[in-house]
Amino acid sequence: MQILHRPFCPHSRFLRLVLAERGIDVDLTEERPWERRADFLRLNPEGATPVLVVADALAIPGAEIACAWLDESGTGTPSRPLLPEGPVERVEVRRLVRWFNGKFFEEVSRPLVEEKIDKRFMSPEHGGGGPNTAALRAARANIRYHLAYIGWLAARNHWLAGAEMSYADLAAAAHLSVVDYLGEVKWTEEATAREWYARVKSRPSFRTLLADRVAGMPASATYADLDF
Amino acid sequence: MQILHRPFCPHSRFLRLVLAERGIDVDLTEERPWERRADFLRLNPEGATPVLVVADALAIPGAEIACAWLDESGTGTPSRPLLPEGPVERVEVRRLVRWFNGKFFEEVSRPLVEEKIDKRFMSPEHGGGGPNTAALRAARANIRYHLAYIGWLAARNHWLAGAEMSYADLAAAAHLSVVDYLGEVKWTEEATAREWYARVKSRPSFRTLLADRVAGMPASATYADLDF
Repeated sequence: MQILHRPFCPHSRFLRLVLAERGIDVDLTEERPWERRADFLRLNPEGATPVLVVADALAIPGAEIACAWLDESGTGTPSRPLLPEGPVERVEVRRLVRWFNGKFFEEVSRPLVEEKIDKRFMSPEHGGGGPNTAALRAARANIRYHLAYIGWLAARNHWLAGAEMSYADLAAAAHLSVVDYLGEVKWTEEATAREWYARVKSRPSFRTLLADRVAGMPASATYADLDF
Repeated sequence: MQILHRPFCPHSRFLRLVLAERGIDVDLTEERPWERRADFLRLNPEGATPVLVVADALAIPGAEIACAWLDESGTGTPSRPLLPEGPVERVEVRRLVRWFNGKFFEEVSRPLVEEKIDKRFMSPEHGGGGPNTAALRAARANIRYHLAYIGWLAARNHWLAGAEMSYADLAAAAHLSVVDYLGEVKWTEEATAREWYARVKSRPSFRTLLADRVAGMPASATYADLDF
Protein backbone atom coordinates (compact mmCIF):
# COMPACT_ATOMS: atom_id res chain seq x y z
CA MET A 1 0.00 0.00 0.00
CA GLN A 2 0.99 3.57 -0.57
CA ILE A 3 -0.12 6.89 0.89
CA LEU A 4 -0.06 10.05 -1.16
CA HIS A 5 0.49 12.53 1.63
CA ARG A 6 2.17 15.62 2.89
CA PRO A 7 4.42 15.10 5.92
CA PHE A 8 2.78 17.99 7.80
CA CYS A 9 -0.80 17.45 6.67
CA PRO A 10 -2.63 16.47 9.90
CA HIS A 11 -5.08 14.20 8.05
CA SER A 12 -2.17 12.34 6.47
CA ARG A 13 -0.56 11.97 9.89
CA PHE A 14 -3.79 10.61 11.37
CA LEU A 15 -3.89 7.93 8.67
CA ARG A 16 -0.22 7.07 9.18
CA LEU A 17 -0.86 6.56 12.90
CA VAL A 18 -3.86 4.33 12.21
CA LEU A 19 -1.92 2.19 9.71
CA ALA A 20 1.00 1.85 12.12
CA GLU A 21 -1.36 0.81 14.93
CA ARG A 22 -2.66 -1.93 12.61
CA GLY A 23 0.88 -3.07 11.82
CA ILE A 24 0.61 -2.10 8.15
CA ASP A 25 3.75 -0.88 6.38
CA VAL A 26 3.11 1.69 3.67
CA ASP A 27 5.17 3.60 1.14
CA LEU A 28 4.90 7.35 1.58
CA THR A 29 4.88 9.56 -1.49
CA GLU A 30 4.79 13.29 -1.04
CA GLU A 31 2.09 15.15 -2.94
CA ARG A 32 1.67 18.90 -3.26
CA PRO A 33 -2.08 19.22 -3.83
CA TRP A 34 -1.84 22.85 -4.91
CA GLU A 35 0.03 21.72 -8.04
CA ARG A 36 -3.11 19.78 -9.09
CA ARG A 37 -1.20 16.93 -10.74
CA ALA A 38 -3.49 15.15 -13.22
CA ASP A 39 -2.71 11.62 -11.96
CA PHE A 40 -3.44 12.70 -8.40
CA LEU A 41 -6.78 14.27 -9.35
CA ARG A 42 -7.74 11.05 -11.12
CA LEU A 43 -7.26 9.20 -7.81
CA ASN A 44 -9.03 11.89 -5.79
CA PRO A 45 -11.01 14.52 -7.70
CA GLU A 46 -11.27 16.48 -4.45
CA GLY A 47 -7.52 17.10 -4.72
CA ALA A 48 -6.78 16.68 -1.01
CA THR A 49 -4.33 14.54 0.96
CA PRO A 50 -4.18 11.79 2.09
CA VAL A 51 -5.09 9.13 -0.46
CA LEU A 52 -4.52 5.49 0.48
CA VAL A 53 -3.66 3.54 -2.67
CA VAL A 54 -4.46 -0.11 -2.03
CA ALA A 55 -4.39 -1.44 -5.60
CA ASP A 56 -4.74 -0.18 -9.16
CA ALA A 57 -8.50 -0.17 -8.82
CA LEU A 58 -8.77 1.05 -5.24
CA ALA A 59 -7.65 4.50 -4.12
CA ILE A 60 -9.31 5.69 -0.92
CA PRO A 61 -9.51 9.45 -0.39
CA GLY A 62 -9.64 10.87 3.11
CA ALA A 63 -8.44 9.39 6.38
CA GLU A 64 -11.91 8.64 7.82
CA ILE A 65 -12.97 6.71 4.71
CA ALA A 66 -9.71 4.76 4.82
CA CYS A 67 -10.33 3.95 8.51
CA ALA A 68 -13.82 2.61 7.73
CA TRP A 69 -12.40 0.49 4.91
CA LEU A 70 -9.64 -0.90 7.16
CA ASP A 71 -12.18 -1.80 9.85
CA GLU A 72 -14.75 -3.29 7.51
CA SER A 73 -12.31 -5.24 5.35
CA GLY A 74 -10.37 -6.43 8.42
CA THR A 75 -7.05 -5.33 6.93
CA GLY A 76 -4.01 -5.49 9.22
CA THR A 77 -3.74 -6.58 12.83
CA PRO A 78 -4.77 -3.80 15.19
CA SER A 79 -2.81 -3.70 18.44
CA ARG A 80 -6.15 -2.78 20.03
CA PRO A 81 -9.56 -1.78 18.63
CA LEU A 82 -9.68 1.91 17.73
CA LEU A 83 -13.46 1.95 17.42
CA PRO A 84 -15.60 0.55 20.28
CA GLU A 85 -18.10 -2.24 19.65
CA GLY A 86 -21.25 -0.46 20.80
CA PRO A 87 -23.11 1.88 18.42
CA VAL A 88 -23.61 4.46 21.18
CA GLU A 89 -19.94 4.46 22.25
CA ARG A 90 -19.02 4.93 18.58
CA VAL A 91 -21.01 8.16 18.44
CA GLU A 92 -18.62 9.84 20.89
CA VAL A 93 -15.52 8.58 19.06
CA ARG A 94 -16.87 9.81 15.73
CA ARG A 95 -18.01 13.11 17.22
CA LEU A 96 -14.48 13.81 18.40
CA VAL A 97 -12.84 12.65 15.15
CA ARG A 98 -15.12 15.10 13.40
CA TRP A 99 -14.27 17.77 15.95
CA PHE A 100 -10.52 17.49 15.35
CA ASN A 101 -10.53 16.75 11.62
CA GLY A 102 -13.15 19.44 11.03
CA LYS A 103 -13.21 22.17 13.64
CA PHE A 104 -9.66 21.99 15.02
CA PHE A 105 -8.36 21.74 11.45
CA GLU A 106 -10.26 24.82 10.25
CA GLU A 107 -9.58 26.88 13.35
CA VAL A 108 -6.01 25.88 14.23
CA SER A 109 -3.97 23.34 12.28
CA ARG A 110 -4.96 24.31 8.75
CA PRO A 111 -4.11 28.02 9.06
CA LEU A 112 -0.89 27.34 10.98
CA VAL A 113 0.36 24.73 8.48
CA GLU A 114 -0.70 26.74 5.44
CA GLU A 115 0.76 30.01 6.62
CA LYS A 116 3.96 28.75 8.23
CA ILE A 117 4.87 25.66 6.14
CA ASP A 118 2.98 25.30 2.86
CA LYS A 119 3.49 28.88 1.72
CA ARG A 120 7.28 28.37 1.87
CA PHE A 121 6.99 25.66 -0.79
CA MET A 122 4.36 27.23 -3.02
CA SER A 123 5.29 29.30 -6.03
CA PRO A 124 3.80 32.83 -6.00
CA GLU A 125 1.11 31.85 -8.52
CA HIS A 126 -0.02 29.05 -6.15
CA GLY A 127 -0.27 31.50 -3.25
CA GLY A 128 3.25 31.23 -1.84
CA GLY A 129 4.89 34.03 0.13
CA GLY A 130 4.94 35.36 3.66
CA PRO A 131 2.41 34.28 6.28
CA ASN A 132 -0.85 36.15 6.81
CA THR A 133 -0.40 37.46 10.33
CA ALA A 134 -4.15 37.90 10.96
CA ALA A 135 -4.69 34.18 10.24
CA LEU A 136 -1.83 33.24 12.59
CA ARG A 137 -3.24 35.45 15.33
CA ALA A 138 -6.71 33.88 15.04
CA ALA A 139 -5.28 30.34 15.13
CA ARG A 140 -3.21 31.18 18.22
CA ALA A 141 -6.31 32.46 20.00
CA ASN A 142 -8.34 29.39 18.99
CA ILE A 143 -5.82 26.80 20.16
CA ARG A 144 -6.25 27.87 23.78
CA TYR A 145 -9.87 26.76 24.04
CA HIS A 146 -9.15 23.57 22.12
CA LEU A 147 -6.33 22.69 24.50
CA ALA A 148 -8.59 23.37 27.48
CA TYR A 149 -11.24 21.09 25.93
CA ILE A 150 -8.67 18.31 25.43
CA GLY A 151 -7.63 18.70 29.05
CA TRP A 152 -11.25 18.54 30.20
CA LEU A 153 -11.96 15.40 28.15
CA ALA A 154 -8.74 13.68 29.27
CA ALA A 155 -9.47 14.49 32.93
CA ARG A 156 -12.95 13.00 32.64
CA ASN A 157 -12.20 9.93 30.53
CA HIS A 158 -8.46 9.20 30.68
CA TRP A 159 -8.51 8.85 26.87
CA LEU A 160 -10.53 11.46 24.98
CA ALA A 161 -13.65 9.46 24.10
CA GLY A 162 -13.66 6.99 26.98
CA ALA A 163 -11.60 4.56 29.03
CA GLU A 164 -9.78 3.15 25.96
CA MET A 165 -7.63 4.78 23.31
CA SER A 166 -9.57 5.30 20.06
CA TYR A 167 -9.51 7.04 16.71
CA ALA A 168 -10.35 10.23 18.60
CA ASP A 169 -6.97 10.24 20.37
CA LEU A 170 -5.03 9.57 17.18
CA ALA A 171 -6.87 12.29 15.26
CA ALA A 172 -6.33 14.86 18.03
CA ALA A 173 -2.67 13.92 18.44
CA ALA A 174 -2.05 14.06 14.67
CA HIS A 175 -3.27 17.65 14.54
CA LEU A 176 -1.44 18.64 17.70
CA SER A 177 1.81 17.13 16.44
CA VAL A 178 2.09 19.57 13.53
CA VAL A 179 1.13 22.51 15.71
CA ASP A 180 3.70 21.39 18.29
CA TYR A 181 6.40 21.20 15.61
CA LEU A 182 5.75 24.87 14.99
CA GLY A 183 6.14 25.67 18.70
CA GLU A 184 2.53 26.83 18.94
CA VAL A 185 1.36 24.72 21.91
CA LYS A 186 1.71 26.23 25.40
CA TRP A 187 1.98 22.90 27.19
CA THR A 188 2.63 24.47 30.59
CA GLU A 189 -0.90 25.94 30.60
CA GLU A 190 -2.67 22.57 30.40
CA ALA A 191 -1.00 19.86 32.46
CA THR A 192 -3.74 17.26 31.86
CA ALA A 193 -3.66 17.76 28.10
CA ARG A 194 0.12 17.44 28.20
CA GLU A 195 -0.05 14.15 30.15
CA TRP A 196 -2.58 12.78 27.66
CA TYR A 197 -0.41 13.85 24.70
CA ALA A 198 2.68 12.27 26.28
CA ARG A 199 0.78 8.96 26.47
CA VAL A 200 -0.18 9.05 22.76
CA LYS A 201 3.25 10.30 21.72
CA SER A 202 5.01 7.39 23.41
CA ARG A 203 3.15 4.84 21.24
CA PRO A 204 5.49 3.10 18.77
CA SER A 205 3.10 4.22 15.98
CA PHE A 206 4.15 7.82 16.65
CA ARG A 207 7.86 7.32 15.94
CA THR A 208 7.89 7.92 12.20
CA LEU A 209 5.99 11.19 12.62
CA LEU A 210 8.54 12.49 15.08
CA ALA A 211 11.37 11.88 12.60
CA ASP A 212 9.83 14.24 9.99
CA ARG A 213 11.35 17.68 9.54
CA VAL A 214 10.53 20.73 7.44
CA ALA A 215 13.54 21.73 5.32
CA GLY A 216 15.06 24.90 6.73
CA MET A 217 12.75 25.03 9.77
CA PRO A 218 13.89 23.28 12.95
CA ALA A 219 11.36 21.55 15.19
CA SER A 220 10.36 23.09 18.51
CA ALA A 221 12.15 21.83 21.60
CA THR A 222 9.11 19.78 22.66
CA TYR A 223 8.37 18.11 19.28
CA ALA A 224 10.46 14.93 19.45
CA ASP A 225 11.01 14.90 23.22
CA LEU A 226 8.90 12.17 24.85
CA ASP A 227 9.48 13.75 28.25
CA PHE A 228 8.64 17.36 27.31
CA MET B 1 -36.83 11.06 18.16
CA GLN B 2 -36.27 14.71 17.45
CA ILE B 3 -34.05 16.64 15.06
CA LEU B 4 -32.73 20.06 15.91
CA HIS B 5 -32.45 21.46 12.43
CA ARG B 6 -32.88 24.37 10.09
CA PRO B 7 -35.35 23.79 7.27
CA PHE B 8 -32.84 25.00 4.64
CA CYS B 9 -29.68 23.49 6.14
CA PRO B 10 -28.63 20.85 3.56
CA HIS B 11 -27.14 18.55 6.21
CA SER B 12 -30.42 18.64 8.13
CA ARG B 13 -32.30 17.82 4.92
CA PHE B 14 -29.98 14.88 4.21
CA LEU B 15 -30.74 13.46 7.64
CA ARG B 16 -34.50 13.99 7.20
CA LEU B 17 -34.37 12.07 3.90
CA VAL B 18 -32.45 9.21 5.51
CA LEU B 19 -34.89 8.97 8.44
CA ALA B 20 -37.88 9.03 6.08
CA GLU B 21 -36.30 6.26 3.95
CA ARG B 22 -36.03 4.20 7.14
CA GLY B 23 -39.66 4.86 8.03
CA ILE B 24 -38.78 6.81 11.17
CA ASP B 25 -41.04 9.68 12.20
CA VAL B 26 -39.28 12.53 13.94
CA ASP B 27 -40.21 15.81 15.54
CA LEU B 28 -38.54 18.77 13.89
CA THR B 29 -37.40 21.68 16.05
CA GLU B 30 -35.89 24.69 14.39
CA GLU B 31 -32.56 25.86 15.74
CA ARG B 32 -30.66 29.02 14.83
CA PRO B 33 -27.07 27.99 15.51
CA TRP B 34 -25.76 31.55 15.31
CA GLU B 35 -27.72 32.37 18.49
CA ARG B 36 -25.53 29.81 20.34
CA ARG B 37 -28.28 28.68 22.71
CA ALA B 38 -26.70 27.08 25.79
CA ASP B 39 -28.90 23.96 25.73
CA PHE B 40 -28.06 23.40 22.08
CA LEU B 41 -24.31 23.73 22.68
CA ARG B 42 -24.58 21.19 25.48
CA LEU B 43 -25.98 18.69 22.96
CA ASN B 44 -23.44 19.63 20.29
CA PRO B 45 -20.46 21.74 21.34
CA GLU B 46 -19.67 22.25 17.65
CA GLY B 47 -22.85 24.34 17.44
CA ALA B 48 -23.96 23.03 14.04
CA THR B 49 -27.19 21.50 12.75
CA PRO B 50 -28.49 18.83 12.58
CA VAL B 51 -28.52 17.06 15.92
CA LEU B 52 -30.55 13.85 16.22
CA VAL B 53 -31.87 13.56 19.77
CA VAL B 54 -32.63 9.91 20.46
CA ALA B 55 -32.94 9.97 24.22
CA ASP B 56 -31.88 12.09 27.17
CA ALA B 57 -28.46 10.49 27.12
CA LEU B 58 -27.98 10.26 23.36
CA ALA B 59 -27.75 13.30 21.09
CA ILE B 60 -25.99 12.59 17.79
CA PRO B 61 -24.36 15.56 16.07
CA GLY B 62 -23.91 15.54 12.30
CA ALA B 63 -25.84 13.67 9.64
CA GLU B 64 -23.05 11.19 8.77
CA ILE B 65 -22.62 10.15 12.41
CA ALA B 66 -26.39 9.73 12.73
CA CYS B 67 -26.40 7.55 9.57
CA ALA B 68 -23.68 5.31 11.00
CA TRP B 69 -25.62 4.98 14.26
CA LEU B 70 -28.85 4.14 12.42
CA ASP B 71 -27.08 1.46 10.36
CA GLU B 72 -25.14 -0.06 13.24
CA SER B 73 -27.98 -0.03 15.75
CA GLY B 74 -30.46 -1.32 13.12
CA THR B 75 -32.96 1.43 13.93
CA GLY B 76 -35.97 1.73 11.62
CA THR B 77 -36.92 -0.30 8.56
CA PRO B 78 -35.04 0.88 5.48
CA SER B 79 -37.01 0.66 2.26
CA ARG B 80 -33.72 -0.40 0.70
CA PRO B 81 -30.10 -0.42 1.92
CA LEU B 82 -28.47 2.99 1.54
CA LEU B 83 -24.96 1.64 2.09
CA PRO B 84 -23.76 -1.34 0.01
CA GLU B 85 -22.53 -4.51 1.71
CA GLY B 86 -19.01 -4.62 0.25
CA PRO B 87 -16.21 -2.56 1.85
CA VAL B 88 -14.93 -1.46 -1.57
CA GLU B 89 -18.37 -0.36 -2.84
CA ARG B 90 -18.78 1.59 0.39
CA VAL B 91 -15.66 3.64 -0.42
CA GLU B 92 -17.36 5.21 -3.45
CA VAL B 93 -20.58 5.97 -1.52
CA ARG B 94 -18.61 7.59 1.29
CA ARG B 95 -16.38 9.49 -1.13
CA LEU B 96 -19.43 11.09 -2.70
CA VAL B 97 -21.15 11.81 0.60
CA ARG B 98 -17.96 13.59 1.61
CA TRP B 99 -17.88 15.38 -1.74
CA PHE B 100 -21.37 16.81 -1.35
CA ASN B 101 -21.38 17.40 2.41
CA GLY B 102 -17.89 18.87 2.24
CA LYS B 103 -16.94 20.34 -1.12
CA PHE B 104 -20.37 21.12 -2.61
CA PHE B 105 -21.41 22.60 0.74
CA GLU B 106 -18.37 24.89 0.98
CA GLU B 107 -18.41 25.90 -2.66
CA VAL B 108 -22.13 26.15 -3.42
CA SER B 109 -24.86 25.43 -0.87
CA ARG B 110 -23.32 27.05 2.20
CA PRO B 111 -22.65 30.46 0.59
CA LEU B 112 -26.02 30.50 -1.19
CA VAL B 113 -28.00 29.59 1.94
CA GLU B 114 -26.03 31.90 4.21
CA GLU B 115 -26.17 34.90 1.90
CA LYS B 116 -29.71 34.53 0.60
CA ILE B 117 -31.61 32.94 3.51
CA ASP B 118 -29.78 32.97 6.85
CA LYS B 119 -28.77 36.63 6.69
CA ARG B 120 -32.44 37.62 6.47
CA PHE B 121 -33.06 36.09 9.89
CA MET B 122 -29.87 37.13 11.64
CA SER B 123 -29.69 40.27 13.72
CA PRO B 124 -26.94 42.68 12.62
CA GLU B 125 -24.67 41.61 15.50
CA HIS B 126 -24.90 38.00 14.27
CA GLY B 127 -23.90 39.04 10.75
CA GLY B 128 -27.34 39.73 9.28
CA GLY B 129 -27.91 42.11 6.39
CA GLY B 130 -27.68 42.11 2.62
CA PRO B 131 -25.97 39.32 0.69
CA ASN B 132 -22.29 39.47 -0.20
CA THR B 133 -22.44 39.59 -3.99
CA ALA B 134 -18.88 38.29 -4.46
CA ALA B 135 -19.78 35.13 -2.49
CA LEU B 136 -22.94 34.67 -4.60
CA ARG B 137 -20.99 35.08 -7.83
CA ALA B 138 -18.39 32.48 -6.78
CA ALA B 139 -21.11 29.97 -5.79
CA ARG B 140 -22.89 30.48 -9.11
CA ALA B 141 -19.68 29.77 -11.01
CA ASN B 142 -18.96 26.67 -8.89
CA ILE B 143 -22.37 25.05 -9.31
CA ARG B 144 -21.82 24.59 -13.05
CA TYR B 145 -18.96 22.13 -12.69
CA HIS B 146 -20.74 20.32 -9.85
CA LEU B 147 -23.85 19.89 -11.98
CA ALA B 148 -21.72 18.59 -14.86
CA TYR B 149 -20.07 16.11 -12.46
CA ILE B 150 -23.48 14.89 -11.24
CA GLY B 151 -24.55 14.42 -14.85
CA TRP B 152 -21.37 12.49 -15.63
CA LEU B 153 -21.82 10.20 -12.60
CA ALA B 154 -25.52 9.62 -13.31
CA ALA B 155 -24.79 8.79 -16.96
CA ARG B 156 -22.16 6.25 -15.95
CA ASN B 157 -23.92 4.61 -13.01
CA HIS B 158 -27.65 5.43 -13.15
CA TRP B 159 -27.44 6.36 -9.45
CA LEU B 160 -24.44 8.44 -8.40
CA ALA B 161 -22.31 5.79 -6.70
CA GLY B 162 -23.47 2.71 -8.58
CA ALA B 163 -26.46 0.77 -9.82
CA GLU B 164 -28.45 1.29 -6.60
CA MET B 165 -29.62 4.41 -4.81
CA SER B 166 -27.40 5.18 -1.80
CA TYR B 167 -26.53 7.80 0.79
CA ALA B 168 -24.63 9.57 -2.01
CA ASP B 169 -27.85 10.33 -3.91
CA LEU B 170 -29.66 11.57 -0.82
CA ALA B 171 -26.76 13.83 0.19
CA ALA B 172 -26.44 15.31 -3.29
CA ALA B 173 -30.20 15.83 -3.62
CA ALA B 174 -30.45 17.43 -0.17
CA HIS B 175 -27.90 20.08 -1.15
CA LEU B 176 -29.42 20.60 -4.58
CA SER B 177 -32.91 20.99 -3.12
CA VAL B 178 -31.99 24.16 -1.21
CA VAL B 179 -30.11 25.59 -4.18
CA ASP B 180 -33.09 24.78 -6.40
CA TYR B 181 -35.46 26.58 -3.99
CA LEU B 182 -33.37 29.68 -4.62
CA GLY B 183 -33.69 29.27 -8.39
CA GLU B 184 -29.93 28.76 -8.76
CA VAL B 185 -29.92 25.51 -10.76
CA LYS B 186 -29.89 25.79 -14.56
CA TRP B 187 -31.58 22.44 -15.17
CA THR B 188 -31.81 22.92 -18.93
CA GLU B 189 -28.00 22.78 -19.16
CA GLU B 190 -27.69 19.26 -17.76
CA ALA B 191 -30.43 16.90 -18.90
CA THR B 192 -28.88 13.80 -17.27
CA ALA B 193 -28.49 15.51 -13.91
CA ARG B 194 -32.08 16.69 -14.18
CA GLU B 195 -33.36 13.16 -14.88
CA TRP B 196 -31.41 11.82 -11.92
CA TYR B 197 -32.77 14.56 -9.64
CA ALA B 198 -36.33 13.91 -10.83
CA ARG B 199 -35.89 10.26 -9.74
CA VAL B 200 -34.72 11.20 -6.25
CA LYS B 201 -37.29 13.96 -5.93
CA SER B 202 -40.17 11.61 -6.66
CA ARG B 203 -39.31 9.41 -3.63
CA PRO B 204 -41.96 9.66 -0.90
CA SER B 205 -39.15 10.61 1.51
CA PHE B 206 -38.73 13.90 -0.38
CA ARG B 207 -42.28 15.13 0.22
CA THR B 208 -41.80 16.90 3.53
CA LEU B 209 -38.82 18.83 2.17
CA LEU B 210 -40.80 20.14 -0.77
CA ALA B 211 -43.46 21.55 1.59
CA ASP B 212 -40.93 23.83 3.36
CA ARG B 213 -40.94 27.52 2.54
CA VAL B 214 -38.84 30.52 3.56
CA ALA B 215 -41.06 33.27 5.00
CA GLY B 216 -41.29 36.11 2.50
CA MET B 217 -39.35 34.33 -0.23
CA PRO B 218 -41.30 32.21 -2.71
CA ALA B 219 -39.84 28.98 -4.07
CA SER B 220 -38.54 28.81 -7.64
CA ALA B 221 -40.92 27.39 -10.26
CA THR B 222 -39.00 24.08 -10.36
CA TYR B 223 -38.76 23.49 -6.57
CA ALA B 224 -41.92 21.54 -5.82
CA ASP B 225 -42.69 20.48 -9.39
CA LEU B 226 -41.96 16.76 -9.86
CA ASP B 227 -42.12 17.21 -13.61
CA PHE B 228 -39.87 20.28 -13.89
